[in-house]
Amino acid sequence: VPHRSWLALVVIDVADLDRGAAFWAAALRGRVVQQPFGEGIYLSVAVPTGAGEFTLLMQQVPEAKTARTRVHLDIATDGLDAEVARLEQLGATRQRTVRERGVRFVVLEDPDHNEFCVIPGRRDDDWPSW
Amino acid sequence: VPHRSWLALVVIDVADLDRGAAFWAAALRGRVVQQPFGEGIYLSVAVPTGAGEFTLLMQQVPEAKTARTRVHLDIATDGLDAEVARLEQLGATRQRTVRERGVRFVVLEDPDHNEFCVIPGRRDDDWPSW
Repeated sequence: VPHRSWLALVVIDVADLDRGAAFWAAALRGRVVQQPFGEGIYLSVAVPTGAGEFTLLMQQVPEAKTARTRVHLDIATDGLDAEVARLEQLGATRQRTVRERGVRFVVLEDPDHNEFCVIPGRRDDDWPSW
Repeated sequence: VPHRSWLALVVIDVADLDRGAAFWAAALRGRVVQQPFGEGIYLSVAVPTGAGEFTLLMQQVPEAKTARTRVHLDIATDGLDAEVARLEQLGATRQRTVRERGVRFVVLEDPDHNEFCVIPGRRDDDWPSW
């Protein structure tokens, strides 16, 4: 019997669903979507990508982070310092600046200390500015 | 000065770029894309989502995984057991089956022991089957 499969979403472990969802929605202009199934354990943020939406699913877990995040999100921007400042205002913590092969990017942590990066990028559509 | 930002990609730490990219490309019918910038440290897999592509970026790291993956991918499917078997053939390892509020899903590890889940899903477009 043939079957189908596809990349559905990224799950992010958090200690507080509302805090995690609020941060990622604000960071990426996403919509917080509660599905009845997930009440109390999951909370979605539907993030625009330019072609549809991509889902980040907050998953409430009891344990705190203990090691480097081995799967992480990158946010691209055409205004690196302004974007990092904006994300810090939203509750992110700047961890360090990296310069690699001439490209500068910044590693931050979300409110649950999950690392993510802000990297330089360009796009030529009508993507809205902050 | 206004600036823009957007969700760019998900970075996955791997010990071997080619192995990681081959696994995720096969798992999700993605295209392996080498950007000159990243030679030897990064390797992209462009994954179809139904509306454009989403990028998974393999990042070579020296250290092995030591703790639970706190940010992970979910693959949705309309054939759970067949999809898990297909992914095991590709080099994934089944970790456990979870039943949560009546929904059954399976936790697996990629070749770098990064956890990901296969969850039940439906879609009504012409997405290709395996």
